[in-house]
Amino acid sequence: MRATAASADPRLTDEERIDWLRLIRSENVGPRTFGTLLRYYGSARSALKALPGLASRGGAKHPARITPREEAERELAAMRSFGVRLVGLGEPEYPRALARIDDAPPLIAVHGNATLLDRPMVAIVGSRNASAAGAKMAGRLARDLGQAGFAIVSGLARGIDAAAHRASLPSGTIAVLAGGLDCIYPPEHADLLESILVDGVALSEMPLGWEPRARDFPRRNRLISGLALGLVVVEAARRSGSLITVRFALEQGREVFAVPGSPLDPRAEGTNGLLKQGATLVTEASDVIAVLEPILGRKIEPPAEEPLPAPEPEILPDTEARTRIVALLGPTPVALDDLVRLAEAPPAIVRTVLLELELAGRVERHRNGSVSTA
Amino acid sequence: MRATAASADPRLTDEERIDWLRLIRSENVGPRTFGTLLRYYGSARSALKALPGLASRGGAKHPARITPREEAERELAAMRSFGVRLVGLGEPEYPRALARIDDAPPLIAVHGNATLLDRPMVAIVGSRNASAAGAKMAGRLARDLGQAGFAIVSGLARGIDAAAHRASLPSGTIAVLAGGLDCIYPPEHADLLESILVDGVALSEMPLGWEPRARDFPRRNRLISGLALGLVVVEAARRSGSLITVRFALEQGREVFAVPGSPLDPRAEGTNGLLKQGATLVTEASDVIAVLEPILGRKIEPPAEEPLPAPEPEILPDTEARTRIVALLGPTPVALDDLVRLAEAPPAIVRTVLLELELAGRVERHRNGSVSTA
Repeated sequence: MRATAASADPRLTDEERIDWLRLIRSENVGPRTFGTLLRYYGSARSALKALPGLASRGGAKHPARITPREEAERELAAMRSFGVRLVGLGEPEYPRALARIDDAPPLIAVHGNATLLDRPMVAIVGSRNASAAGAKMAGRLARDLGQAGFAIVSGLARGIDAAAHRASLPSGTIAVLAGGLDCIYPPEHADLLESILVDGVALSEMPLGWEPRARDFPRRNRLISGLALGLVVVEAARRSGSLITVRFALEQGREVFAVPGSPLDPRAEGTNGLLKQGATLVTEASDVIAVLEPILGRKIEPPAEEPLPAPEPEILPDTEARTRIVALLGPTPVALDDLVRLAEAPPAIVRTVLLELELAGRVERHRNGSVSTA
Repeated sequence: MRATAASADPRLTDEERIDWLRLIRSENVGPRTFGTLLRYYGSARSALKALPGLASRGGAKHPARITPREEAERELAAMRSFGVRLVGLGEPEYPRALARIDDAPPLIAVHGNATLLDRPMVAIVGSRNASAAGAKMAGRLARDLGQAGFAIVSGLARGIDAAAHRASLPSGTIAVLAGGLDCIYPPEHADLLESILVDGVALSEMPLGWEPRARDFPRRNRLISGLALGLVVVEAARRSGSLITVRFALEQGREVFAVPGSPLDPRAEGTNGLLKQGATLVTEASDVIAVLEPILGRKIEPPAEEPLPAPEPEILPDTEARTRIVALLGPTPVALDDLVRLAEAPPAIVRTVLLELELAGRVERHRNGSVSTA
């Protein structure tokens, strides 16, 4: 996705930035739907115009809420006065690795030293209730990887995350927040975030003032792995948030590393399990560097600029096709290809119906591209 | 190698057993030379007759010591009164996996329940100064692998070895000693050995009364790995005896398993290193069983019965060939193939000269078949 279809300048104009912000903050519009809408309508502004019609054809019970222009302007002004910049996917400051994931946020709020985002990154994550040894290990890896030229990404959580941030303060550390950049979680890490912002950077895809809900953390985790070339898990219990980040990392084609531990230590169950599944064993930074070095020298290419197809807003599925497609959907996710085959409808029709249903809040899109009823 | 070339009965006669014992206990005769001599001369008795001539042609400074018949008879009698049986390579009681290693001892002294030697085995080894967690882990693995049908092999050492033996007392445990079966090391494990001998078994390739020297331990370690289908290392520092056993295991084509540990624990340096090199990660017995199960059901084949070549005692290298070969040898090990090429002599001549030099104590044979000056 490029910032605009028409312009050769990858930077968003002020007007475009406001349109983008309105669109991504509107009801039922996530990063993937944002991308689809931009492809369909050529610009956020055209998509905003089409939104009410799409949602109502999708059977929305009430008109889908579209963020008013004034609200987006207020958000942008609040960010500016807070010292935060809003960077659009496709703009030069947007982190290159993150731009390559298929649900990259169209806009990220960036606080602090944005030049760090141009560096190759390694993510270090792990248990919140880390052992002293685990925290020490995280710190050692973060320090040594930092000295080797990697910026360290983590999630500002207690335990491993905090140790990784602290040890990479001098070399470069990046905190990714699940809520707004002014909503620090856990609250006792306000001081840590302040230290990070001296030379490092914090980022979030959420608006200022957004208190993170439980489900915002896994959503945030895709950014942690997406920013980095590799993900190092230091300590992790069997079912832990870190393993969710690993799943994202694998889907995104990132290298996964794990620090081993005693099988008698429950905090090593997750990492030992990852090692059994083929993660690279790490006892020191050089184990990570050996794998990432071939990538390190190379400039990460911006995502391939797929030629934007001509906007295709005029495809209006007939009622019969819509009914057929709705009937095929259920709580079990179904792949788009299967849906096209079963509905015996052209892919463009199926995609349009799904977009309508999505904007009406009636279907949910899953990470592998399959869809189910919401 | 079969017990005898001539007889179809794989059991040694009393006379043969005494000849074998005399030959393996003679000066400069190790397991590999024993095998070569048996192939050359067809029987231990003929080899014993040829020994003085071979050694003197090899340039022995003094006549090589040949164990007198009375001495071998005394050793055999002492073993019998101690309740120990001497089992020859090729006899039905000889452990099948061990028979397949290329420096299998021609005779092993067996004390206790010899029927255990027919079972598939797993070796469990590790640090003498094991942590409580390491010992617990060794015990848990030994117990669970024992219940799964494996006899557990270890070296009666402090720490991991002792924990593995103790936990497999009910299911079947095998102690391999570096000295004679009456020379228990460490001495405080006399009680443990006594418990082992209730249902388990101890074995050694050394004579009764042999106090183990430092170099006997690595030699013994090849039997620990050689007996087993797989070797599990529970805790091991960077340079430790366990890693010597691993080297043997790899040369012998055995599966190597390692238990992970914290990178901050020096006792895990060896095992984490093995994991980096491709050892299978073990946190529970099922990890070992999953790898060995395909082998478990299968009866281990006795080593292929290579047709014994006709005895070739009459090859007498001329002085010139002998001088040329001696000149090519130095302290750096050289492969047999290279020696044959460089000496421009028939392989049989080179082999005979090397045998003579070996029996004269002038060359040393290395594990990969290469030779150097002693």
